[in-house]
Amino acid sequence: MKKTNRSTLKRVPKRGHYDSKTIHTILDQNHICHVGIVHQGAPVVIPTLYGRSGDQLFVHGASVSRLMTELEGEIELSISVAKTKGLVLARSAFHHSLNYESVVLFGKGSLISNTEEKLHALKSVSDHLIPGRWEEVRQPSAKELKATKVIAIPIEEATAKIRTGGPVDDKADYELDIWAGELPVVEKYGSPIADEKLAPEFRKLPKSIVQLINP
Amino acid sequence: MKKTNRSTLKRVPKRGHYDSKTIHTILDQNHICHVGIVHQGAPVVIPTLYGRSGDQLFVHGASVSRLMTELEGEIELSISVAKTKGLVLARSAFHHSLNYESVVLFGKGSLISNTEEKLHALKSVSDHLIPGRWEEVRQPSAKELKATKVIAIPIEEATAKIRTGGPVDDKADYELDIWAGELPVVEKYGSPIADEKLAPEFRKLPKSIVQLINP
Repeated sequence: MKKTNRSTLKRVPKRGHYDSKTIHTILDQNHICHVGIVHQGAPVVIPTLYGRSGDQLFVHGASVSRLMTELEGEIELSISVAKTKGLVLARSAFHHSLNYESVVLFGKGSLISNTEEKLHALKSVSDHLIPGRWEEVRQPSAKELKATKVIAIPIEEATAKIRTGGPVDDKADYELDIWAGELPVVEKYGSPIADEKLAPEFRKLPKSIVQLINP
Repeated sequence: MKKTNRSTLKRVPKRGHYDSKTIHTILDQNHICHVGIVHQGAPVVIPTLYGRSGDQLFVHGASVSRLMTELEGEIELSISVAKTKGLVLARSAFHHSLNYESVVLFGKGSLISNTEEKLHALKSVSDHLIPGRWEEVRQPSAKELKATKVIAIPIEEATAKIRTGGPVDDKADYELDIWAGELPVVEKYGSPIADEKLAPEFRKLPKSIVQLINP
């Protein structure tokens, strides 16, 4: 990654990672990113779905949406993604923490106008949610493509931040009769709920879902 | 909530909620918020822990951190919080979606300088992670309090956005032999991992953790 002043961790620098592999892995394990822009001089942060392919991140939305209209203007943006991995329970209130994996990136997006690139980006968003699903469903019509804007953002100026492990307490506090450790937080899939309008003969779970819930 | 142009949903307005109860509930069910500010004319979004008490949201950090130093200047900020509740699997690529609960808020933070208010805010951040933990652990020292800044942000200009339920497909697509429905995403606690430096006689799980994992 391109290390700039704004993308370089100052506090607890050992938690910072700038290699593409770490950054891509964290991006691939989350569903929602938080896109920050400056609108009329003030910050606006909007949560949205995204996808990734190589060193590009994609966000999409209705062509008429405010966010998409702003982003196609190639304005500066910042995107944050974070997942809680566990609560870090220390012996003092002060040393409580969170285990997490986050990515913050900076850059400018640009509108994808080429239809082939647009379909590739939309497939990336779909694959990001559930790999293989794209091939199982009805493909976008020309009208649907027109109603959707896709913005590509280079993953160039980005930082991953990771905290793992248990608490680090003050020396004297280790003598205290206080439980300390980590409480993991895990994200899981529940049981698939068939659409009530799904005909009985179509109820066999598709490969994409079977693979996602039993990897 | 104060409904302003920027806090009022234009797209799919039926998903918008402006009552404090809904907004507070969503805020209380997440660990990480994404704070957006404008720094040197460009947006910066940073993930961080937070707490809530009444209609105030609190973020805290090292007194020397860049984010805290910016926020105490009472600059405009925007905060986004979102949780994935499920994947919405439609018959067409276009109608795929996510079930989620999100809050976006706008406002200005201010530094808490009063010690009593600061302790209350820090307890709110602690209670937000794990209720009852604050009372079980060593309280902050004067030195620790000095090393920490806490910013209070009014929850006044905020929007919750919620999507629930299964897919909504185009009429003709209901005839297609494609599984459609919802795949819930749930967050759970794993088994507590005791700190390896925890003495055997201190290993009994405290009430706060027992209640959190067996509510």
